[in-house]
Amino acid sequence: MSVANMTPAEVRALIRRNELVRPTSGMANGYTQANMAILKKDLAFEFLLFCQRNPKPCPVLDVTEPGSPVPRLVAPGADLRTDLPKYRIYRHGELVEEVTDIVQYWEDDMVAFLLGCSFTFEQALMNNGIPVRHIEEECNVAMYKTNIPCVKAGRFEGPMVVSMRPIPEKDVVRAVQVTSRFPAVHGAPVHIGNPESIGIQDLHKPDFGDPVTIKEGEVPVFWACGVTPQAVAMQVKPELMITHAPGHMFITDLRDEQFGVL
Amino acid sequence: MSVANMTPAEVRALIRRNELVRPTSGMANGYTQANMAILKKDLAFEFLLFCQRNPKPCPVLDVTEPGSPVPRLVAPGADLRTDLPKYRIYRHGELVEEVTDIVQYWEDDMVAFLLGCSFTFEQALMNNGIPVRHIEEECNVAMYKTNIPCVKAGRFEGPMVVSMRPIPEKDVVRAVQVTSRFPAVHGAPVHIGNPESIGIQDLHKPDFGDPVTIKEGEVPVFWACGVTPQAVAMQVKPELMITHAPGHMFITDLRDEQFGVL
Repeated sequence: MSVANMTPAEVRALIRRNELVRPTSGMANGYTQANMAILKKDLAFEFLLFCQRNPKPCPVLDVTEPGSPVPRLVAPGADLRTDLPKYRIYRHGELVEEVTDIVQYWEDDMVAFLLGCSFTFEQALMNNGIPVRHIEEECNVAMYKTNIPCVKAGRFEGPMVVSMRPIPEKDVVRAVQVTSRFPAVHGAPVHIGNPESIGIQDLHKPDFGDPVTIKEGEVPVFWACGVTPQAVAMQVKPELMITHAPGHMFITDLRDEQFGVL
Repeated sequence: MSVANMTPAEVRALIRRNELVRPTSGMANGYTQANMAILKKDLAFEFLLFCQRNPKPCPVLDVTEPGSPVPRLVAPGADLRTDLPKYRIYRHGELVEEVTDIVQYWEDDMVAFLLGCSFTFEQALMNNGIPVRHIEEECNVAMYKTNIPCVKAGRFEGPMVVSMRPIPEKDVVRAVQVTSRFPAVHGAPVHIGNPESIGIQDLHKPDFGDPVTIKEGEVPVFWACGVTPQAVAMQVKPELMITHAPGHMFITDLRDEQFGVL
């Protein structure tokens, strides 16, 4: 059976046994994948507050009890210490290691945050016949730092990072409607059109990810990006912070459609 | 000028001078009103997590920085110590006093939570020609304890409290659509029809508020209620907790329509 058609629990079991150490795109189709950030409890309130104040870049899907690696709301049978294919360990804001499990790093006062990711709304766009360029071109989505400030919470502050997808003019309205249905995974765009209005100088030079082709008659459309909370948290230089490795997401038990508000 | 047509800042100024000590329903029409709960910082993370896990009964509109009485997101010019008409002081879960300001109770480690209230979606129902019975009958909405458990967070747990509005059969679908637009103020109903399915034995005997008339051809429709988080917090018996007095809400600078997701 292909990993595309497996259940989330089946895919996570393979990942747990280190038999599937690769990006999770295309696994357990139809199920919601999530970004992960783990912080110590002393920063957890401020980070949760930051997410609550900035729901577009930081849509919270689940937060674990301090010390528990079990995401009870979105996957009660999972263990966040082992069930992602690859993790990044940051000390004082510096990447120090990439590992395939974090059992040895786990501490009693850790809190794991699972945040919605763009895979869900990209699938919804494609289900509506709207092309997603970086998937067509098999590269990473183009991401940019903007001049849009996030709302500060305690020590957490910084600019919003956005992802850009070129959308055919005739599909722009529908793209807004479709993604508005999914506020738990970034929701509606934050900007349509002129990149300079939000502080982006050159679409061909993204700050993260890869540049993509923008065709004649296509409009750049910008969504709040899940890189934002990690970038902001990194500036605080926490003693220890653990995240998923880019593209190596956590696969939840919930279906994308369950996050549609209407 | 009538208080209905004043701006939120004008109404709050009157309230601050104790010139308007009464329920806020009908003041600053079109602007969003909020429930308030103030806790000490040591309970704030768990309570925020409880709200995040139970967004229907506990829709967070704003959370202040610890020690700050200013709700920067929803009313940066306001002071939560003085700008509500009436407050309730609870010690160890017991109501000890009702006061018109809380300046003398305010401490450096307090965090104020503003939670969405049903006024917003009731206005939306009426704008759609759907009657709201307790407003017609000039009484309090009928509220019931249910057998629907909230999702636990730390010390906070308990059953969901719901409010009930009788809706004409022909308007039930539209009532779901209209309120779904406003997830920040309780959103879509949690149940339609048979009260016993959610553990309510007698609609004529609400646990809070007043019973209302249910006419021939009307269906009881149940929404998650903002009484839930206060009831749940009270069970934890916090050393000190301050809330708005029932009906004496905080008036924000944001318009109801700004909370519509589509």
